[in-house]
Amino acid sequence: MDVESSRPLRVLGIDPGTLVVGVGVIELAPRGPQFVACHAIRAPRDAAVPVRLLRIHDALAAWIQRYEPSAIAVERVFVGKSTPSAIRIGEGRGVALLCAARSGSPVFEYPPAEVKRAIAGFGAADKSQMAAWVARLLGLKEAPKPHDAADALAIALTHAHRMHRNRGLGGNLTA
Amino acid sequence: MDVESSRPLRVLGIDPGTLVVGVGVIELAPRGPQFVACHAIRAPRDAAVPVRLLRIHDALAAWIQRYEPSAIAVERVFVGKSTPSAIRIGEGRGVALLCAARSGSPVFEYPPAEVKRAIAGFGAADKSQMAAWVARLLGLKEAPKPHDAADALAIALTHAHRMHRNRGLGGNLTA
Repeated sequence: MDVESSRPLRVLGIDPGTLVVGVGVIELAPRGPQFVACHAIRAPRDAAVPVRLLRIHDALAAWIQRYEPSAIAVERVFVGKSTPSAIRIGEGRGVALLCAARSGSPVFEYPPAEVKRAIAGFGAADKSQMAAWVARLLGLKEAPKPHDAADALAIALTHAHRMHRNRGLGGNLTA
Repeated sequence: MDVESSRPLRVLGIDPGTLVVGVGVIELAPRGPQFVACHAIRAPRDAAVPVRLLRIHDALAAWIQRYEPSAIAVERVFVGKSTPSAIRIGEGRGVALLCAARSGSPVFEYPPAEVKRAIAGFGAADKSQMAAWVARLLGLKEAPKPHDAADALAIALTHAHRMHRNRGLGGNLTA
């Protein structure tokens, strides 16, 4: 057994944004997925978008560097309330995908409906139900806070679920 | 006269994207705006979006580092043909704004209609008309190619036009 194979696989989930970005890290242990860490990165609300994106990029890059994930899972959103809000969502996603690609870890994307189905079993679960299920799946006493951090863990868990279901398959975006 | 003031102000314009990104650099000389350089950065078409964003980021960062602009002007788009395309537009913008913010140069955004009005005098100018006007304003014998590079020069020229019109005012996003 070499050093690499003795370390459990680690998945880092990202719930992208331009104000708050959720990050969640889990480990895939033989006894099931284990909680490692989660956090909500907050950009200064009164700063201009370029500056917010820079702060988010640097914080996210530091998280990825610290936890050295074997895979990165990012929420893929298709809808926005309006075109300007869809463009803003895209700005946050662009920075998250850039950080993920820079790390060299394979990047996977999951739409919100798939995350909800994988975690809560149904696509209409609300944020509180999702956080409660994340806590249950990870054996945590309390639901992770804030919602952005819980969402990021849910995205990481969705990747774990998908890997478990179809080993060796899956939709690696960058390999 | 110190070293700083002896160098003419340089504006770098960016026409963002996730496949092709236009970059154009002009100098604001006393006799009017002068062409410095333009280019279309192309991401590998068959690569996944995260990898494309990474390539674009690095190429754009190299351009900004090379030309050390006093100001960076980025096209601000509000519309997309659909929500997914608006999100994709946002991804490209996010990476461009991040590069611009990282450089420390002040970042300005101009909507396409304002770029067209500033360059061609009317908001419905097509790409060929725009490229022809860019050539005329910069004293070039031929229209800059491809359109993405011409568009980036048009965005830089729009900033020059705005600065000339209201000196000391303007909408600096990051200062």
